[in-house]
Amino acid sequence: MSADNEQDAREQLIDLAAQFYDQFELGEIPHMSVPTRTKNNIEYDEESNVWVYGDRESTRSANSVRGARKLLKAVYTIDFLADQLDEDRSSTLRELYYLSESWDNEEAQFTSQDESNSLIEDLEIVSGVTREDFHMRPEESGATIMGPLYLREQTRRGEREIHCQEDVGEGGYQIPNNPDTIDFLDCDADFILAVETGGMRDRLVENGFDEEYNALVVHLKGQPARATRRITKRLHDELDLPVTVFTDGDPWSYRIYGSVAYGSIKSAHLSEYLATPEAQFIGIQPADIVEYELPTDPLSDSDKNALESELSDPRFQTDYWEEQIELQLEIEKKSEQQSLASRGLDFVTDTYLPERLDEMGVI
Amino acid sequence: MSADNEQDAREQLIDLAAQFYDQFELGEIPHMSVPTRTKNNIEYDEESNVWVYGDRESTRSANSVRGARKLLKAVYTIDFLADQLDEDRSSTLRELYYLSESWDNEEAQFTSQDESNSLIEDLEIVSGVTREDFHMRPEESGATIMGPLYLREQTRRGEREIHCQEDVGEGGYQIPNNPDTIDFLDCDADFILAVETGGMRDRLVENGFDEEYNALVVHLKGQPARATRRITKRLHDELDLPVTVFTDGDPWSYRIYGSVAYGSIKSAHLSEYLATPEAQFIGIQPADIVEYELPTDPLSDSDKNALESELSDPRFQTDYWEEQIELQLEIEKKSEQQSLASRGLDFVTDTYLPERLDEMGVI
Repeated sequence: MSADNEQDAREQLIDLAAQFYDQFELGEIPHMSVPTRTKNNIEYDEESNVWVYGDRESTRSANSVRGARKLLKAVYTIDFLADQLDEDRSSTLRELYYLSESWDNEEAQFTSQDESNSLIEDLEIVSGVTREDFHMRPEESGATIMGPLYLREQTRRGEREIHCQEDVGEGGYQIPNNPDTIDFLDCDADFILAVETGGMRDRLVENGFDEEYNALVVHLKGQPARATRRITKRLHDELDLPVTVFTDGDPWSYRIYGSVAYGSIKSAHLSEYLATPEAQFIGIQPADIVEYELPTDPLSDSDKNALESELSDPRFQTDYWEEQIELQLEIEKKSEQQSLASRGLDFVTDTYLPERLDEMGVI
Repeated sequence: MSADNEQDAREQLIDLAAQFYDQFELGEIPHMSVPTRTKNNIEYDEESNVWVYGDRESTRSANSVRGARKLLKAVYTIDFLADQLDEDRSSTLRELYYLSESWDNEEAQFTSQDESNSLIEDLEIVSGVTREDFHMRPEESGATIMGPLYLREQTRRGEREIHCQEDVGEGGYQIPNNPDTIDFLDCDADFILAVETGGMRDRLVENGFDEEYNALVVHLKGQPARATRRITKRLHDELDLPVTVFTDGDPWSYRIYGSVAYGSIKSAHLSEYLATPEAQFIGIQPADIVEYELPTDPLSDSDKNALESELSDPRFQTDYWEEQIELQLEIEKKSEQQSLASRGLDFVTDTYLPERLDEMGVI
């Protein structure tokens, strides 16, 4: 699968560069059209439940020095990426920026990392190939998985077959930068529980929640990396596993849920690749704060503003979220995942999660 | 080893509580003495090359309501920790704070997490037992290892034997929260290369640096977690491996090196457990910025202040560091690890690191 993607990605890139030749031959000024990446041109697609680009395009054209320089940089970058794929190598966004200093044409060198990052985003959108398939690695890798999943990872040192409970330490299986190098061989899991904090992830593993409930415990580590969202989506799509998201009970954590489920405005072109619209939110719900009398902190002004802005965010425009967010604005309190410990260290695994999973129809 | 530690830790805790009984019997007001944890009472020990506490002590005594409440909280916490060790369970600092809400005596409940964190530090210092041996887990776990090391991890699901190249994916072996659950079975490594950033860690692994140079590549992930520093120290002490630290070339990264090598003021009581004074700094050195004409950013005012304060930090009072820091203040520039990519993606593994390791006498 990986080799096919690479071949595809390489062809898409070469096609892009070939367009410029065609344009030259037709006597046209070379140009490239890219969807406008501003908030006005991003729409929430009701059908697929994710963010997508609208119809507006902007054109990079060689009819100005500035535009010509942009295309020159694009061509150099395409050349670098095509070579990288050919040699089965990879690099980070930051390396690409620094590497451009070694290019023979000074006009093609990037003046800031924002510029090279944004060009890679352009190329992702125009070619329909993801950064991972260009072999551009993120700076920081994904998080970990613990649960009854047996997988094969294609590494550059050969294949590794790993069971994510039996062949790993307590730290779990470390998700690689590009999870598309993974094949799922066997899975006894009934659902995925994606968890925001390391403290809670460790609690669930210590309490044997993954074993008792056949759960894949995926650590989100705060705002999840692309690799973590991608493998979550693949586990859902390929193995038909329900995805549940377990975070702190505050507006920033609801955004973590939102990015797993619906993607983000910043990466609207990747929604199809990264978002799992079927993902369900387990909690901490504002209703839980009331029901279980959890220890709380007061909402700050920025918490309140974030909640207000979620009320007008299309991703949160459901009866469920409106009710929960309005309740939270009313009680003016927030609670962390780990505050469930106020009812004992086993409450989360013996009572809270089983009850919520049952309510949600997951178990 | 782990079971012995637990037994020891439990006895130390019970001894602490028993002291209060002894004091009652002698007609003394119960009290506990703790080294004062202020900057004035922390000394750099020239002999062992780490930070240690001085002779000043402060006393928590039940001769005031405030003091009595502190001791009450200590006793409840000791009781909780002793039970936890007895049942072979563990918890996080945050869970302890929340859990205190379930204690029957309201006076014993913590009013803030700072209070419970600081009590655990007191108990670590007074008992001479580390937090890990109380089974208090950190919120976030350590980072990863890749290299020719075969180890056995005692997990609560049984033993796992893992080779940190052959049995792991590209993400490497995830260091558990308490690396003292690990036994080193076999090691073909010649040295440790501890690396600050994920981008560089991935570059080294992609280029096969661990294989070619028999290196254990330990990812520090910025300021390293206790677990990462602990396993680095154990690898050094038990397997006699030289430790080299590879970071960005700026004052904040020199502090990362400092915390691996000499510990920090905040955790002076743990220096013996966490610090590796023999660790050597590879770079990026200010001299490298000049020699290799690396891409740079200008020093900010806070960078300059941090460098100045390092000049007066006993950890950096060597000819080497004075020369490097003064050079950096002169050129007013800093460079990242990944800026080595300006000389090509293989420069770091083919040229830079081998030359530095040779200069340093490591290879």
